[in-house]
Amino acid sequence: MRPEKNREVRVGDLVFGNGSFQVIAGPCSIESEEQYRTTSEFVRSCGAQALRGGIYKMRTDPKAFQGLGPKAYPTAHKIKSEVQMPLFSEVTDPRQIPALGEIVDCFQVGARNMHNYELLKELGRQPRPVLLKRNFSATLLEWVKAAEYIELAGNDQIILCERGIRTFESATRNTLDLGAVAYVKTRFGYPVIVDPSHGIGIADLVPRMALAGMAAGADGLIIEVHSSPEEALSDRDQALSFGVFQRLMKQIHELSPHFALERSLRP
Amino acid sequence: MRPEKNREVRVGDLVFGNGSFQVIAGPCSIESEEQYRTTSEFVRSCGAQALRGGIYKMRTDPKAFQGLGPKAYPTAHKIKSEVQMPLFSEVTDPRQIPALGEIVDCFQVGARNMHNYELLKELGRQPRPVLLKRNFSATLLEWVKAAEYIELAGNDQIILCERGIRTFESATRNTLDLGAVAYVKTRFGYPVIVDPSHGIGIADLVPRMALAGMAAGADGLIIEVHSSPEEALSDRDQALSFGVFQRLMKQIHELSPHFALERSLRP
Amino acid sequence: MRPEKNREVRVGDLVFGNGSFQVIAGPCSIESEEQYRTTSEFVRSCGAQALRGGIYKMRTDPKAFQGLGPKAYPTAHKIKSEVQMPLFSEVTDPRQIPALGEIVDCFQVGARNMHNYELLKELGRQPRPVLLKRNFSATLLEWVKAAEYIELAGNDQIILCERGIRTFESATRNTLDLGAVAYVKTRFGYPVIVDPSHGIGIADLVPRMALAGMAAGADGLIIEVHSSPEEALSDRDQALSFGVFQRLMKQIHELSPHFALERSLRP
Amino acid sequence: MRPEKNREVRVGDLVFGNGSFQVIAGPCSIESEEQYRTTSEFVRSCGAQALRGGIYKMRTDPKAFQGLGPKAYPTAHKIKSEVQMPLFSEVTDPRQIPALGEIVDCFQVGARNMHNYELLKELGRQPRPVLLKRNFSATLLEWVKAAEYIELAGNDQIILCERGIRTFESATRNTLDLGAVAYVKTRFGYPVIVDPSHGIGIADLVPRMALAGMAAGADGLIIEVHSSPEEALSDRDQALSFGVFQRLMKQIHELSPHFALERSLRP
Repeated sequence: MRPEKNREVRVGDLVFGNGSFQVIAGPCSIESEEQYRTTSEFVRSCGAQALRGGIYKMRTDPKAFQGLGPKAYPTAHKIKSEVQMPLFSEVTDPRQIPALGEIVDCFQVGARNMHNYELLKELGRQPRPVLLKRNFSATLLEWVKAAEYIELAGNDQIILCERGIRTFESATRNTLDLGAVAYVKTRFGYPVIVDPSHGIGIADLVPRMALAGMAAGADGLIIEVHSSPEEALSDRDQALSFGVFQRLMKQIHELSPHFALERSLRP
Repeated sequence: MRPEKNREVRVGDLVFGNGSFQVIAGPCSIESEEQYRTTSEFVRSCGAQALRGGIYKMRTDPKAFQGLGPKAYPTAHKIKSEVQMPLFSEVTDPRQIPALGEIVDCFQVGARNMHNYELLKELGRQPRPVLLKRNFSATLLEWVKAAEYIELAGNDQIILCERGIRTFESATRNTLDLGAVAYVKTRFGYPVIVDPSHGIGIADLVPRMALAGMAAGADGLIIEVHSSPEEALSDRDQALSFGVFQRLMKQIHELSPHFALERSLRP
Repeated sequence: MRPEKNREVRVGDLVFGNGSFQVIAGPCSIESEEQYRTTSEFVRSCGAQALRGGIYKMRTDPKAFQGLGPKAYPTAHKIKSEVQMPLFSEVTDPRQIPALGEIVDCFQVGARNMHNYELLKELGRQPRPVLLKRNFSATLLEWVKAAEYIELAGNDQIILCERGIRTFESATRNTLDLGAVAYVKTRFGYPVIVDPSHGIGIADLVPRMALAGMAAGADGLIIEVHSSPEEALSDRDQALSFGVFQRLMKQIHELSPHFALERSLRP
Repeated sequence: MRPEKNREVRVGDLVFGNGSFQVIAGPCSIESEEQYRTTSEFVRSCGAQALRGGIYKMRTDPKAFQGLGPKAYPTAHKIKSEVQMPLFSEVTDPRQIPALGEIVDCFQVGARNMHNYELLKELGRQPRPVLLKRNFSATLLEWVKAAEYIELAGNDQIILCERGIRTFESATRNTLDLGAVAYVKTRFGYPVIVDPSHGIGIADLVPRMALAGMAAGADGLIIEVHSSPEEALSDRDQALSFGVFQRLMKQIHELSPHFALERSLRP
């Protein structure tokens, strides 16, 4: 029940799972070149190690904003090159893999596609690492089995991401399950990061959840940041403003070394 | 909040949503020509109106039996022609649609793909009707919004299927939510059928759940039947034996006329 | 795993668990003599076998109407004597047992008190039968173990009541778990009734849930009925009007004989 | 939606809600004088501020160990006097209040009694502070409303305790909802502590959950510690051994000052 060693996963020059702590930050969606540059430069200046930026969005309502799609490819490529940071972005269809793989450094599989085994198998047959979010009602075993779909197809560069589960509670957007982080990390050895933005869905509480995720032993965080959260085209209630993100990054920088043991496999 | 009229959906010569009651029956998976013929002939002799039969299976474990895939196409085509019944079978990847569409009379979208919006959009662009299962943790609104993905892409021939949701209870495989049937049917007008096999997952209790689904106002049922349940390659705990299925069909035949009002939009 | 025989429980002259089907009906709360008489006479005229009527109400909000308490005792006693029907009413504190036991024919334990083991033990030490509702998040095993608290203290006259569980779904008040009825009845032999009013919480869908409960094998129903649902002091959204209740009782009368086998222990 | 100030609650000389961090530790149940003395002296030596120790236990199975009951009163009184620490212990029936109130410094209401409003009202009419655990399926609003039952009856000395909720996940005993801590604390101003022992139910993961609770802004922790966890009469899988507890207390001592801002009402 105890893995022999942590799995380490490389995304560009970054390593997940070796005891270091990585912050992936950026807007929910790439909305424009200006917006993406401003936010990307800012999160880099605060010490974030990687960029997030949605190109394809999974939305409950078919009439809601679905991301810019291929039109965002040039912007994504340009900005990540300018700021020299690796890019994480979501893939929602196996047919997107060839072109999107030219742009992203790590494919992200969203919660709603964790059970999309045809997509997972295709991601197993290509060379980029994969960030696999937990479906909001997947058991821990189902999550690990989904990772095995990728691995059995040939790709063992897998990072898991806890982003909150669906429960009876509706005051918060989801219920962030930090026990899952501790359990999966120590029992299966995968690097695990936390998404506090979706995990609670309320901007002023995101920093507390980010720190709690770090204390639970996560190897990193993925956080939504927006220059004007109230104008974001998606997820505006949970995006951090620049000021709040900056303050959080200072705390993370100061405190993350204290939790290195929790990131190890020590029981 | 009250739809003006029921939506009616045609699958071959069958109509769902016009007050009649349809039973789709067959094995979880097509395993062999012999097995599929025996079961199909039997369910027809008991009065079932349509066939089920899995070709692509979504399995939690990547090492579990995943269905015969394209190798089952000839068998599926042969048997449905012999017994002269329409076939419902699951699609798990948009790239399967052209070939699978030659064989099935209604595409089935499984619970785990209800949120696979790229698949839903493709199904909206082709002419076959779609049976859309509720994801095991989808709210009723998310379910209806998923149906809208299909409809907005051009296909309004959609049947919904309640197959049990995930709750804290583990004595039964899922918690069959019959309130969902009543709610979605009366508020949105879609034909709704019930899958009692997945809904409870325990063969000896499936008939009671089938009857309860009928009484709640469902327009039909989809039921797993196997000539030797204990030898089934998948879902063996919930498949009905021939004898139990035959007895259930007699009750359905006798009682379904009494519930025609519950299948209407009368509050 | 199969009980040797059904347990039979007597409440006044009624028997639960012998294959017959009993309907307990009345208002959520006793509000006045006039209101209680009108409703009680009406439900009797429709064929209901027993009365419900809340005296002590468990309310989430301490400022909400909590029932009339001891002031309702004379009314309760008077009306049940006039209409000659046994009375089911909820007990919320062990100290109410002596006086309330003079009035009720069956003590009802509400969902929120299913885990109140001190109360259950006291109910085990007195002679009245007990209707034990399932807590909205109790597993089936916990429910049966709660019944054992009563039985081990000396009282085996226990009827179970499924009234809906708490899940992620919020369109309906609760998720009525009819699989629980089938499971507990066949595995443990207790008489089980269904509360479709709390189970779905939406008046126009209550009849469908009542019929579904009957079809699942329940031994009876407990239903909220009010002469003017929109004026009820509690649970107004789920109380049936007289007209709807009358129509439902006709269906029950006609159909319940067809489901006698589902009320037996036949698998 | 933002309380004007934190509520402060005194238990003996301790204050909850003023920015300090308190650890309540001890065995699940008082089993013997020897066991309770050894554990109490040890947790004090590690820096714990208060004692826990169950006298009345709520157990699912009526045949399981239910606590020593009144026989434990002399031991409880003796040991807490020797170690000079305030005692938290659970009350399960209003009739226990007078005698138990002579011994405990703070009444604890367990998860299963959060909805026991008759008990809460009685606790509102006596002078001891109350630790109110969240029911494992209570919404945040229901939890706060339960606290109002106590407060409206006259007692505003209320500490809340998040101890994990019931979800579909079964790998961990409960799902610790740290978002609840942040939400209730900042929106309602109550002091909130975390029970990581019940929250995850797996001893080797308890320290990570304890640290995560601290980082989320909790005002303290309540932790199960046992001299020989494998011999404990209850909750043996989640009790910390002396060595693990000592190591955790060192981390808490070192890190808790860094999270003082998270314990404030700052958004």
